[in-house]
Amino acid sequence: MTRPKLVTPRTLKGFRDYLPAAMLPREALIDTAKRVYRSFGFSPIDTPALEYAEVLLGKGGDESDRQVYRFEHGKHDVAMRFDLTVPLARFVAQHEQELGLPFKRYHIGAVWRGENTQRGRYREFMQCDFDTLGTESMIADVETGLVIHELLRAIGFQEFTIRLNNRKVLNGLLESVDLADRAVPVLRALDKLAKVGADAVCEEMARTAGASDAQARQVLALAGLGGSDAELLARVESLVAGSELGRLGVAQLREVLEGIAAGGVSTERIKLDLSIARGLDYYTGTIFETFLGALPDIGSVCSGGRYDDLASKFTRSHIPGIGASLGLDRLLAAMEELAMLESAAAPAPVFLAYFSADRAADYCRLAMDLRRAGIGVELYPSPRKLGEQLKYASRRGFEFAVIVGDEEWATGVCQLKRLATKESESVQLDDLAARLRGGTGE
Amino acid sequence: MTRPKLVTPRTLKGFRDYLPAAMLPREALIDTAKRVYRSFGFSPIDTPALEYAEVLLGKGGDESDRQVYRFEHGKHDVAMRFDLTVPLARFVAQHEQELGLPFKRYHIGAVWRGENTQRGRYREFMQCDFDTLGTESMIADVETGLVIHELLRAIGFQEFTIRLNNRKVLNGLLESVDLADRAVPVLRALDKLAKVGADAVCEEMARTAGASDAQARQVLALAGLGGSDAELLARVESLVAGSELGRLGVAQLREVLEGIAAGGVSTERIKLDLSIARGLDYYTGTIFETFLGALPDIGSVCSGGRYDDLASKFTRSHIPGIGASLGLDRLLAAMEELAMLESAAAPAPVFLAYFSADRAADYCRLAMDLRRAGIGVELYPSPRKLGEQLKYASRRGFEFAVIVGDEEWATGVCQLKRLATKESESVQLDDLAARLRGGTGE
Repeated sequence: MTRPKLVTPRTLKGFRDYLPAAMLPREALIDTAKRVYRSFGFSPIDTPALEYAEVLLGKGGDESDRQVYRFEHGKHDVAMRFDLTVPLARFVAQHEQELGLPFKRYHIGAVWRGENTQRGRYREFMQCDFDTLGTESMIADVETGLVIHELLRAIGFQEFTIRLNNRKVLNGLLESVDLADRAVPVLRALDKLAKVGADAVCEEMARTAGASDAQARQVLALAGLGGSDAELLARVESLVAGSELGRLGVAQLREVLEGIAAGGVSTERIKLDLSIARGLDYYTGTIFETFLGALPDIGSVCSGGRYDDLASKFTRSHIPGIGASLGLDRLLAAMEELAMLESAAAPAPVFLAYFSADRAADYCRLAMDLRRAGIGVELYPSPRKLGEQLKYASRRGFEFAVIVGDEEWATGVCQLKRLATKESESVQLDDLAARLRGGTGE
Repeated sequence: MTRPKLVTPRTLKGFRDYLPAAMLPREALIDTAKRVYRSFGFSPIDTPALEYAEVLLGKGGDESDRQVYRFEHGKHDVAMRFDLTVPLARFVAQHEQELGLPFKRYHIGAVWRGENTQRGRYREFMQCDFDTLGTESMIADVETGLVIHELLRAIGFQEFTIRLNNRKVLNGLLESVDLADRAVPVLRALDKLAKVGADAVCEEMARTAGASDAQARQVLALAGLGGSDAELLARVESLVAGSELGRLGVAQLREVLEGIAAGGVSTERIKLDLSIARGLDYYTGTIFETFLGALPDIGSVCSGGRYDDLASKFTRSHIPGIGASLGLDRLLAAMEELAMLESAAAPAPVFLAYFSADRAADYCRLAMDLRRAGIGVELYPSPRKLGEQLKYASRRGFEFAVIVGDEEWATGVCQLKRLATKESESVQLDDLAARLRGGTGE
C-alpha cells in the first residue's frame, strides 16, 4: 500500500500560530484590559467576522478598501472586518433603541487586512477597543484618559506618557491663519515635523496647500510652543484667540487635564502635546497617544480620540463619542523586550509525576484533591523515568513537581520539588494542599 | 445639500451580534472553561482564521467541504476554519519539535460554516476544545472525563450525566459477528435506534450492510444490555469474548470508570452507555457525551473521544490523543432556559450619578478612589435629572447607585441606593469604599 502524499503543514503569509508561550501572556494582557474596562462600566460586545461588503467598505478606492478580504458567497458580496470601529457604527445604528445612550462598550477581536507583510505587518491581528457613545460631555474624555492610565499601570508599566491634544485647537489655528479649507494637506505636512524639520514642512505646505511662508510659520509656531502645561495653554490661547473653535479646544484641554489630575494621574504621565494630529479626518476633539518611557520609538501603544458622529453612514441619529484602542501586539513586543514576561509559565503551578498504572486511581484522586483545593495540577500520563518527567516539567515551566512513588504511597509522605532551584522537601500527603497554597503564594 | 443615502445596518443571515446582555454570560462561561482547563494543565493556543484550502479540506466532496467559506486571495486558494481540530492537526505537525509530547492544549475560537440556517444553525459560532496529544495512556481518558465533570460543576450544574463508551467494544462486537468490514453502515443504522426502534434498524442493516437478521440482533443486543455498570461490563465482556479488540475495549472502560470514580465523581454523573457511537470514522477508543438532567433533549453539551492518529495528513509521526468540546451556545441556551443567568448584569457594580460640571473633577476623583479600592464604577457623563439617571442605572443592571449632590459634597455624606430594592442609606464619603466592599460581597 503506498502512503498518501503529505500536505505541508504551513500558515498563510502574514498569519501566525500562537504557541502557549506566546498565548499565555496574550491571554493575561487581554484579561487585564477587560478588568480595567469593566471597572469603568464598559460592557463587552461582539460582531461577526464577516459582513456585507457595503456595510464595511466606503465608496471604494481608498487604501483600507483595497486591503480588505472580500469575496462572493452565494449571491452576496461579503468582506472580513478590517477594524472594530465600522462594525461598531453598524451595531449601534442597528440596535440603538435596545442599547440606549450613553453606551460604553469594549470589543476585543481579530481583524484582517491583506497588507504588505514586508513591513513586518500581520494580516490577522487583535484589536482591543473601548468607546463611550452618545455623549459630548468632557467627563467621557477625562475617563478615556483615566482608562488608558489604569490600563498601563495594571499591565505593569511605571514610566509612560499619555500625550493629549485637541483637534479643535489645530483647526482653530487654521481658521485664524485662513487655512481651514486646506486642513488635510497642512496637517499631513505638519505630521512630518519631527522627521524632516521646519523648513521642509513649510516647503511642503507651500507646495501642497498653497500656504505662504508666514502662514506656515504660524502653524509651526503651535508645535514649537514650550513651557509647563499651564504656560502652554496660555500661549496657545492667545495664538488661537481669533477662532471660537480654537478657544473651545483650549477650554476642553483645560477641563480634561483638570479631570485627569483629579483622578490621581501625575503630571509626568499626562502631557499636552500640540503636535499630535492622529489621522486627518476622523477626530474632531480630544486626541490621545501613549508612549512608553523605556521604548518611545515603538510608537503609541494606546491611541484614540473624540469624533462628532460615528454612524452617519447608517442612521440619521447623531451619535458623538470618544474611544481608544490598546495596541496588544506592540505592548506584548515591548513587554518581551523589557523582560516583563516570564520566560516559561505553565498554565498550572504543579506537576504530578506518575510511576505505576497500578496506582492510576490514586494519582487521579490526589490530582483532583489538589485541584479542588484550588491548586492547578498536571498529571503526567505515562510511567516514564523520573528524570524524563522532570525534564518535561521544567521545560513546560511548572513551579513545583510532586513525586509519589511506591514507597511514598506506603508512607504517606511525598517529595515536593521546586523546579527552578531543584530544592526538595518531604511533605505529608495530607498536608500537601496547605503547603502548596502557602508555597505558590511566595 | 442632499444627504447621502443610508446603508441599511444589518448582519448576514446566520451571523449575529452579541449585545452586552448576551456577551457578559458568554465571557463568564469562557472564563470558567479556561480556569478549569488550566487547572488540569491545558495551555491555550490560537491558529489563524484563514488557512490554505488544501490544509483545511479533504479530497473534496464530503459535506463539511461544501460548507466551507473558501475563496481566492491573490494567487492563493484560502478557506476560513470550520472547526478547531483540523487546524490543531496542522499546528501539531508544524510545531512538533518545539511543542514536545505529550501536549495538552485548549483552543477557544470562532469557526465558520455556510450551513443551512433554516435548522436554527449559525454560520459563525465559538468552539471550546481541549485535547491531550501524544499519549495512549488511559490517564488521559480519565482526566478528560474529570475535566468534563469539573466544567459542568464549575458552570453551576448539579444534575448531569456523562455517558461513556468505547469504540473498541463496538468494533470488537462487529468483529465477533463478522461485520467489521461493514462498520460504517451498521453503526449508522444503530445510531437511529432511539428514533426508529429495533425492527427498522435491523431492516436498515440488512439493506445497507447486508447483515443477516441474526447478525443485526447481536449488534442490537449490545445496546439493549442493562444493569449496573459492573453487571453491564460483565455482560458485554462475554458478548465480545471472541474479539481481542473488544476485550481491550472492556478493559479500558473499566480503567476509565475506576479512575473517574477515584476523582470523586458520583455514579449518578458517569454512566456506561453502549449505544453511543459519536460519528463513524474518527474515534477509536473512549467516547463521551454529556446530558443535562433538566434538559436532556437539547442533546450533548460536551462530547469527545479518543483518536489513533491526529495528524496523518501532515506528518508521518504517529500522534494519538483524546479531546472533547464544550458546546457553548447550547449551554448558554440551557442556562437561559433554566434561569441560571442574571436577567441584567452591569460590568461594574456601582453607578455614580453626576449633577454638576463645576464638580466634574470631584466626581472623577471619587470614581477613581472607588476603582482603586477594587470597586467597579460607572460615572454618568451628563448632569441629567436624578430620575433619568436612576432609570438608566436600573436598566443597565447596576447593583448600587451613589448619589452626591451639592449638599452631599458640602456635608461629606452621600446617599447609597440599592437599585433592586430601592433601599437607601446615608454613608460618609470616607466610608463608602468599605461599605461597598462589604455590600457587594453579600
